[in-house]
Amino acid sequence: MTAYSALNAAQLARLEELAGAENFSAAHAERELRSRDAGHHPPQLAECVIWGRDAAQISRVLAYANAQRIPVTAWGVGTGLEGNAIPTRGGILLTMERMTRIVEVHADDFQVTVEAGVPHKDLNAALARYGLFFPPDPGANATIGGMLANNAAGIRTVKYGASKDNVLAAQVVLADGRILQLGSRSVKQSSGYNLLQLFVGSEGTLGIITQATLKLVPVPQHMSAMIASFADVTQAIEAVVAVRGAGLDVAALEFLDVTNTLALNQAGTDIPPYPTLLMEIHAAHAATLDEDIATVRALCAACGALHFRATADAAERKTLWQARHHAYETLVRNHPNERIFIMDVAVPISAFPQLIAHARATIDAAGIRGYMKGHAGDGNIHIELPYATPEGLEVVKGVNGAIVREAIRLGGTATGEHGVGIGKRAYMAQEHGEALVVMRQIKQTLDPNGILNPDKVL
Amino acid sequence: MTAYSALNAAQLARLEELAGAENFSAAHAERELRSRDAGHHPPQLAECVIWGRDAAQISRVLAYANAQRIPVTAWGVGTGLEGNAIPTRGGILLTMERMTRIVEVHADDFQVTVEAGVPHKDLNAALARYGLFFPPDPGANATIGGMLANNAAGIRTVKYGASKDNVLAAQVVLADGRILQLGSRSVKQSSGYNLLQLFVGSEGTLGIITQATLKLVPVPQHMSAMIASFADVTQAIEAVVAVRGAGLDVAALEFLDVTNTLALNQAGTDIPPYPTLLMEIHAAHAATLDEDIATVRALCAACGALHFRATADAAERKTLWQARHHAYETLVRNHPNERIFIMDVAVPISAFPQLIAHARATIDAAGIRGYMKGHAGDGNIHIELPYATPEGLEVVKGVNGAIVREAIRLGGTATGEHGVGIGKRAYMAQEHGEALVVMRQIKQTLDPNGILNPDKVL
Repeated sequence: MTAYSALNAAQLARLEELAGAENFSAAHAERELRSRDAGHHPPQLAECVIWGRDAAQISRVLAYANAQRIPVTAWGVGTGLEGNAIPTRGGILLTMERMTRIVEVHADDFQVTVEAGVPHKDLNAALARYGLFFPPDPGANATIGGMLANNAAGIRTVKYGASKDNVLAAQVVLADGRILQLGSRSVKQSSGYNLLQLFVGSEGTLGIITQATLKLVPVPQHMSAMIASFADVTQAIEAVVAVRGAGLDVAALEFLDVTNTLALNQAGTDIPPYPTLLMEIHAAHAATLDEDIATVRALCAACGALHFRATADAAERKTLWQARHHAYETLVRNHPNERIFIMDVAVPISAFPQLIAHARATIDAAGIRGYMKGHAGDGNIHIELPYATPEGLEVVKGVNGAIVREAIRLGGTATGEHGVGIGKRAYMAQEHGEALVVMRQIKQTLDPNGILNPDKVL
Repeated sequence: MTAYSALNAAQLARLEELAGAENFSAAHAERELRSRDAGHHPPQLAECVIWGRDAAQISRVLAYANAQRIPVTAWGVGTGLEGNAIPTRGGILLTMERMTRIVEVHADDFQVTVEAGVPHKDLNAALARYGLFFPPDPGANATIGGMLANNAAGIRTVKYGASKDNVLAAQVVLADGRILQLGSRSVKQSSGYNLLQLFVGSEGTLGIITQATLKLVPVPQHMSAMIASFADVTQAIEAVVAVRGAGLDVAALEFLDVTNTLALNQAGTDIPPYPTLLMEIHAAHAATLDEDIATVRALCAACGALHFRATADAAERKTLWQARHHAYETLVRNHPNERIFIMDVAVPISAFPQLIAHARATIDAAGIRGYMKGHAGDGNIHIELPYATPEGLEVVKGVNGAIVREAIRLGGTATGEHGVGIGKRAYMAQEHGEALVVMRQIKQTLDPNGILNPDKVL
């Protein structure tokens, strides 16, 4: 591990000069604002904040930081959950929040080129006039740069893929200041090593993504939401497999456990208190939608569904998904004196019932509460574990670790979409074995001084 | 560049011992059989052929080859087009053709784990009983390992993605013999660097893929083929944009120029001699198919289509696609005393008419013939250029180079699906700039002695 020392006055002055005075601050308030993410990891202060403006400026800052061994942690809007952007070693907090330019909309190509700091909901609002949207949606209004760095996903991944599946090209600045153009605007690419995908998901440890060209899809003409309730989790997952096996291209396939149905009902829905699937279908024609709903209904019934309800009504659909999106806030309100630990693992769909059963048993054995919901179509589950004290946090961490290890054992992964950050590093050796050594070799090759987001991922 | 010397008797004996006598041959006939691919690059002989059997055996062979600086070129079935698997430096030809085991079908997860030597058509035949298939289809019966190493794609990529989009995990042997397990069976993965995608498309220059877990999709219940003819290429591409913009999830969207419609008609079709789109739609319901066809017909008409014809008749659809798949053989028959140079570039769809016009002008100016067809939905074009003499080949190479450079200039890539191999190396600096230096750093990190597939990609 590289040794980092506190920045001295000369270094701070030089960084201010390189970044531009209007893009630099060492004020406590600015550092404090960017010291913690949306998860449970303790806040840590950078020594200065630099607002990135373009690749050239970031290149200058990085080249100097690299020469001086100053840590650089990139920051979007702080919606991460695993401490991915917490500046654990001080140094520079490089925030992308002023790089919000939509560089070019390539409407006929279903593409857009953006700066890394554009929040994805703002991007989609701007794209609405073209009838196009960028489908990955992690819930929070994360920046495109943060979503790519973390390979964010969300509820629509089952149809549209994760962030990694929706990017064609990126501009990246390396630790030594070199500026790379990766990929191209061709949707088919078989030309040289796929460096683009090496940087996507690397959480700012290999380079800083400054611009990206994203794939877009047409806004669907017709949508329907469906709710199906089952006596047990296994039946619900059988229905997931049946729906996918029928060739229906479902746009969302969410699982809620009983505790989550109760929480959502407090937010205005009326969902029966059973293991539940929330589904959404997008179609180009109304008739297709009706056919698809009839098929899903029949498949759910065959798997033993207790209740099934479909709605193409926009208001009702909106209520349902808003409740789903705000489930976390509802949970927070229900636990006023507690904090919420949110975990994320993913397994092959066939192992989903086994994972849920293991998680429920582990949570119950620890004597704590746990709320499960997840992207069942992807085998991805989130468990929310409230805690009130440092001792409570330790118990929750133990439960988290047991579930993560079980997910890996079941052929899955320590994280489907939250990334490794600080919180999942402990499981990398179990999941990746010898490949972790190769990841370290790549890190050493691209960032030999270890200035980029130290203490993360590896 | 590493210096390689001819293998001596002791080295050959040791390789035979490490590989197993039944998996080793230095016979000329075996080497000759694996000295050229399906393209125009001149054949070159390896010094011995080793049949890979499993990761452990390949690991032993590679560790020795690495210590002795012996080149190793991996081989599937030789259907490449850019010399990707031609053993330019002699050494070991490592063929995967005996590693054809389907290790496990995970039907409920829509996944299969296979050895690298399974040809994809054989795999799909074996998967038919599960109602599932692996969608990438480059035409030839390439092996899964070759398809992954090359990121092969084909006509269904517009809906289902290329090989890289349909792989979840792989076992890879590094140059020094280390065996890696990359990715997992979880469809969502956000855990550490995406090494899997670094090896996919690296054409055997970074490691040898020995096993892979692939994503499968349900065999579609209903299919229709459509043919639309247009007065010019621009109208045809407007129709491509319109069809995709309508949110129709077309499974194939192929472009044929006039010369190719004539060639296909010799193979049994009856396509009007105009710039043509061949399309295929897959649907879960017959009614959906009818709606989709009506929409495509209306969109094509709005773009000025001269003719439009749809058929859900299986025999007619089969004739059409067989003619498309055999267009190359038809071309070969029509040019009995010539060889065919096949090129591959891809651009953003909006630049497709410009690329086609440039290519046609370049071909005409050179006084040669050229047949264009391509995966228009992906902006990917193949141009077939017959030649008869070494001088003719030089003219064709000049035309190829001009079109490749134009494709890159238009925001595209030197190769959408054939890979770099030998043939596209000259264009890597124009396409990738500084990123090419980083590719070389990665190569140096993972294969410091340069034993894996020398002279390729970089």
